[in-house]
Amino acid sequence: MKKSLGKKTILFPSPVLIVCSYAADGTPNAMNVAWGGIACSEPPAVAISVRETRKTFENIMTQKAFTVCIPSAKYIKEADYFGVVSGKNENKFKTTGLTPVKADHVNAPYIKEFPLALECRLLQTVTLGSHTQIIGEIVDVKADETILNAKGFPDIEKMQPCVFDPGTSSYYGSAKFLTQAFQAGKK
Amino acid sequence: MKKSLGKKTILFPSPVLIVCSYAADGTPNAMNVAWGGIACSEPPAVAISVRETRKTFENIMTQKAFTVCIPSAKYIKEADYFGVVSGKNENKFKTTGLTPVKADHVNAPYIKEFPLALECRLLQTVTLGSHTQIIGEIVDVKADETILNAKGFPDIEKMQPCVFDPGTSSYYGSAKFLTQAFQAGKK
Repeated sequence: MKKSLGKKTILFPSPVLIVCSYAADGTPNAMNVAWGGIACSEPPAVAISVRETRKTFENIMTQKAFTVCIPSAKYIKEADYFGVVSGKNENKFKTTGLTPVKADHVNAPYIKEFPLALECRLLQTVTLGSHTQIIGEIVDVKADETILNAKGFPDIEKMQPCVFDPGTSSYYGSAKFLTQAFQAGKK
Repeated sequence: MKKSLGKKTILFPSPVLIVCSYAADGTPNAMNVAWGGIACSEPPAVAISVRETRKTFENIMTQKAFTVCIPSAKYIKEADYFGVVSGKNENKFKTTGLTPVKADHVNAPYIKEFPLALECRLLQTVTLGSHTQIIGEIVDVKADETILNAKGFPDIEKMQPCVFDPGTSSYYGSAKFLTQAFQAGKK
């Protein structure tokens, strides 16, 4: 017999996606997004859901481009910080000391220190309610050579990506508890 | 310096979602979906991407309902099987011996043996290419009491959800390698 938990946004694993974009004046921004995933195989596409009030939404609508960067567990504090502060108030790259690198195929930055980045071109938006889905075509995937296996694919054990638990607002890495969300990034 | 891997659908962690539905004649079906995630907070909504040729797509369009069930790692063989065989040819519940239970709020079955189930009402579809996104409102989340923590939320370490690696077609559980995808389910 299962217990009803009500109308909740609980799904495992939810990802820890750092969505990067440029403002109109070229300032790089980064935002932590847990609502998203791959949306299509051909064209290869990713969907992320963002509130329209976010700086990231404004940037992506302006530039028609973004990247989705995957932090390894050792950057979980920076990743959480990207979710608790607005790019309207702070230059998040300056605060964290992480390095924005202009993507090769789209006008958006990716994070040099993170092991994986998806370069995306805006395809369409889908209005849903509190959040609007932004769907982007994946025009290139970039990876640190150190995380690649013998066949040239990312090795999840070398990459150490993080998992977000929306129920308890926690992050997991290697399925071990890392830190509480909305707290580590405030430090 | 990052290495370009080209246009690929690689994102970590990708989920292992078992989407369940009823055919018009009431036959329950289950399908393994890795392209999906939470899409909106209010209304709480989940997005899954499915090819329109799938039995699951036909069922959801008919019933306007589905569930998203999360298998624990010990059911990874059954989960993989749900991804390698079509509901047009087999009754997948009969083959696996898993138990379909009619959801309380929508006309779709969930899997009794899996620890978590989201009951969903069809909101809209988004045509993307090879896959069509199916967006559903989460009208209830159901969990086994054995996986709940003291505050009534699912405990990821008790639940042992699986992670899909789209690059190498592998599943991970607790970030340890479980089994190769598109193989375990064929046995």
